[in-house]
Amino acid sequence: MNVVVVGAGAWGSVFAALLRDRGHRVVLGCRNEGRAHDLAPVYEGIDVVAMADAPVGEADLVVVAVPSVSFAPVVGALKGNVPVLSLTKGLDPLTGARLSTLIADRLVAVLSGPNLAQEVSGGLPAAAVVASSDRGFAAELQAAITSALFRVYVNDDIVGVELCAAAKNVIALAAGAVDGLGLGDNAKAALVTRGLAEMARLAGRAGGRPETFAGLAGLGDLAVTCWSPLGRNRRAGELLAAGRSAQEAAVLIGTVEGITTAPLLARLAHELGVEMPITEAVCAALAGAEIAELVPRLMSRDPTTE
Amino acid sequence: MNVVVVGAGAWGSVFAALLRDRGHRVVLGCRNEGRAHDLAPVYEGIDVVAMADAPVGEADLVVVAVPSVSFAPVVGALKGNVPVLSLTKGLDPLTGARLSTLIADRLVAVLSGPNLAQEVSGGLPAAAVVASSDRGFAAELQAAITSALFRVYVNDDIVGVELCAAAKNVIALAAGAVDGLGLGDNAKAALVTRGLAEMARLAGRAGGRPETFAGLAGLGDLAVTCWSPLGRNRRAGELLAAGRSAQEAAVLIGTVEGITTAPLLARLAHELGVEMPITEAVCAALAGAEIAELVPRLMSRDPTTE
Repeated sequence: MNVVVVGAGAWGSVFAALLRDRGHRVVLGCRNEGRAHDLAPVYEGIDVVAMADAPVGEADLVVVAVPSVSFAPVVGALKGNVPVLSLTKGLDPLTGARLSTLIADRLVAVLSGPNLAQEVSGGLPAAAVVASSDRGFAAELQAAITSALFRVYVNDDIVGVELCAAAKNVIALAAGAVDGLGLGDNAKAALVTRGLAEMARLAGRAGGRPETFAGLAGLGDLAVTCWSPLGRNRRAGELLAAGRSAQEAAVLIGTVEGITTAPLLARLAHELGVEMPITEAVCAALAGAEIAELVPRLMSRDPTTE
Repeated sequence: MNVVVVGAGAWGSVFAALLRDRGHRVVLGCRNEGRAHDLAPVYEGIDVVAMADAPVGEADLVVVAVPSVSFAPVVGALKGNVPVLSLTKGLDPLTGARLSTLIADRLVAVLSGPNLAQEVSGGLPAAAVVASSDRGFAAELQAAITSALFRVYVNDDIVGVELCAAAKNVIALAAGAVDGLGLGDNAKAALVTRGLAEMARLAGRAGGRPETFAGLAGLGDLAVTCWSPLGRNRRAGELLAAGRSAQEAAVLIGTVEGITTAPLLARLAHELGVEMPITEAVCAALAGAEIAELVPRLMSRDPTTE
C-alpha cells in the first residue's frame, strides 16, 4: 500500500514506522519543515516531507495523526477522495463534532487503544481497535497493520470508539489530579471506574455500544492513560493539582488533548442530557476552581446503589 | 453495633479500625494468640482477642476477613445465627464454591472494591460495594460502615461481586508477569481488558450482572490490583516471571489468593463451558510452564472482532 501519514508527532511517527515494517511504502508529512529535516535521518525507509509536499493524491490511504485542533484544517486540505484512518483523539474544537463526521463523504476509520508511542517504538507488544461503519474497510486495515507485536481488532462502533478516545483524556486529567493530591490508587481506581461509567453513559446516548467501553478503546486506553507515568493528560492533571494553570501545563507538556476536549465533552453531555460529574469537575478546574476542593466533593456524592 | 471481626490480617485489622471510628464496639479475633498480643496496643479502642475467645454469640455482626483457605473452617465454627459480612476474596478450596454459599442459611453480605489496606489505614479515601441478596441488610451495612473517607455502595448481585473478587487476583498474577517480563503498560492494559472480559463471561454464565463487572468490585478492584505496586498478587506474578515457583512466591509474600483461586476458577469455567484463556495460562504457569512463552502466546491469538 502507498500510505501518507499526516502529522509527525510521537504517535504519527511511530505508526509510520509500524506500517513501513509491514512492507508498505510510507510518506510521513510534517507540518513543520524543520521537523521533516530532523526526522528524515531517524526513520530509514520512510520518506519524510513537508506536509504540503505529501503525495496525497497518489496514496491508497491517508493516516491523520495531528492534534484535534488541527484535524479540521488538515482534512479540509486533503485533495481527492482517498480513504482516511484517523489516529486523532478528541473532538472538533469549533463544532464539538466527532472528528470522523468532518469527512463523512470518504471511507473513514479510526484507530484507538492503549498505545503509548514510546512503548510501541521500543518494540513492546500492544493491541488496538480499528473502527469503521464499513466493516470491509476495517478488515482491510486490520490485515494491513497487524503484526506480531501490534495486534489489531475490528469493530463497527465508530461512535463509541471516537467518544471513548476523546473522553478518556478528560478522565485522565482527573486521575492525574488524584495522583497530584496524593490520594492513592484506591481513590484513583474509584475515579476511573466512575469515569468509565460516565463515558459509557455519554456514548450510549450518542448511539455507541457498551461493549466498546469495556474493550481496548475504552477501559484499555483509559487504564493506561490514567496509570502510566508517560501519559501526558495524567501528567497535566498532576500539574493542575500542584496549582499550575491549564496554560502552564500545556506549555510544559505540549499537546494535552484533555484540556481542549473537556469543555466540548461537557457541552455534548449537556446537549444529550447526560450527567458527567467528573468531566464537569475537570472543566471547573481548568477554569481555575480549587482542585483540592473538587476531588473530595466528587468522592463524597451521596452513597447509593452502584 | 457489636461487631466481631474474625481475622487480623492487614485488611481485617484496618476494617476493624474503620468500624471503631464509626462508633461501633469492635472485637478483633486473631487466629494466632501471639498476634493478638502484638496488635492489642496498636488498635486503641478495639478489643483484640484470640479467635476462640471472640464473643460471637453476642455480636450483631461477624465480619470474616480470613484467607479463603480458612473461610470454611472459620464459618463452620461460628455459633448461633449472627449475620455475616465477608471480606474474603476467593473460592472454597475444597469444593470451588462461592464462599457465601457456605453460609446460605444466614443473612450474608460481601464487601469488595479497590481497597488496599495500607492506603485505607493511612487515611486515604476509598470506595467499596456491599452486596447481598437481601437489599435491606446491604443498606443497613452501608449506613453502618460509610464514612467521609470510606464510601459504600450497595448492590444485590452477590454472585457477580464474589466472582469478581475471586477472579481479579488471578488476572493480577498475569498482569504481574507482564510487569516481570518488562512488556509495558500497553500490554498490561490489553491483558486487563481481556481479563475483565473473561471475568464478565464467567460471572454472566453463573448468573451475575454485567454492570457489576464495570463497577468498583470489578474494574475498580482489578485496576488497583494490577497497577498498584502494593498488590500481593501482582507481585507474585512478577516473581513467577522471574522464575520463582508459586510456592516460593507464597513464602516471600504471604497469602496470595490468586494462586489458590486459579485452578478452582478454571474448573468452574470448564463446568460452565466458558473460555478463560488468561486464567488457563495462569494455571499453566503455576504448574511450572515457561511464563515467557505463555504471555506472548496470549498476545498472539488470532486478531478478530472485539
